[in-house]
Amino acid sequence: MAQRKTIDDLFVHMLSDIYSAEKQLTRALAKLSRAASDPELIDAFKTHLEETQGQIERIDQIVEKTGLRLKRMKCVAMEGLIEEGQELIDEIKKGAVLDAGLVAAAQKVEHYEIASYGSLCAIGKQLGHDDAVKLLTQTLEEEKATDLKLSKFAQRAGNGKATKEKATA
Amino acid sequence: MAQRKTIDDLFVHMLSDIYSAEKQLTRALAKLSRAASDPELIDAFKTHLEETQGQIERIDQIVEKTGLRLKRMKCVAMEGLIEEGQELIDEIKKGAVLDAGLVAAAQKVEHYEIASYGSLCAIGKQLGHDDAVKLLTQTLEEEKATDLKLSKFAQRAGNGKATKEKATA
Repeated sequence: MAQRKTIDDLFVHMLSDIYSAEKQLTRALAKLSRAASDPELIDAFKTHLEETQGQIERIDQIVEKTGLRLKRMKCVAMEGLIEEGQELIDEIKKGAVLDAGLVAAAQKVEHYEIASYGSLCAIGKQLGHDDAVKLLTQTLEEEKATDLKLSKFAQRAGNGKATKEKATA
Repeated sequence: MAQRKTIDDLFVHMLSDIYSAEKQLTRALAKLSRAASDPELIDAFKTHLEETQGQIERIDQIVEKTGLRLKRMKCVAMEGLIEEGQELIDEIKKGAVLDAGLVAAAQKVEHYEIASYGSLCAIGKQLGHDDAVKLLTQTLEEEKATDLKLSKFAQRAGNGKATKEKATA
């Protein structure tokens, strides 16, 4: 049943959603790094796992500073994004082609987070949650940097191993 | 069971995924425009619905030109993204706060598409699917422009009606 909600309620809803997304992601990134072959890509996933743990801690800090109470909820979009990555792992043998697929799946995840933190920053700013916005902006910048790093893998995958694997298939 | 796949298989898989995503989105955008209150936002959703139909036609053209055969599949990530928007519609009464939520949900959808088309362009380029890349790039630019347009609504929502609704709640 639709209820009258405030913009603060929406902020809490969105923060709870990304909190669930990040928690799910910590488990997924461990899987991605086990499924990858390229040592640099494995490293990138491991580094992002550490970052993700730091991003969860930032949300904990926001909750502490603002006194907001997060809702218990499961981010269904992140669930779908992770399922997509799992499908690739199930269907494609380990190697350069799977790596290219994992990079694409991970970029979709990054973009989900970029959109989420972008919206949270916009709404948080208007609500005067300045400390929260500072922390959310730090995370937003990390997500953008990770996406950029993955883009370089995507270009390399096309130039190199993945297409060679095609030629010898 | 994991199989040896080529980078062409991955390209077809990703193209089939976004085809399903776009088809789902045409239905979702009609819902979003019915749930929105701000006439300009309603217009933006309607315009993007028309664009989405054009984007589906571009994929049809790619299939025709390349002779690739798309897989029948359901994009589970888009399913989750749409479910998130539906949750907001179910929980929040029509008005400025719901509008702000719909903008955030729509930006997540746009970012899913930006990541997808970005990966498809990178892989398509390496495979020499030049005509396809040209069409995919056109769509990618449209998605980026839509995201930018939505960002302006996000800033306005915070500045204007949604916070006023908070003040009078």
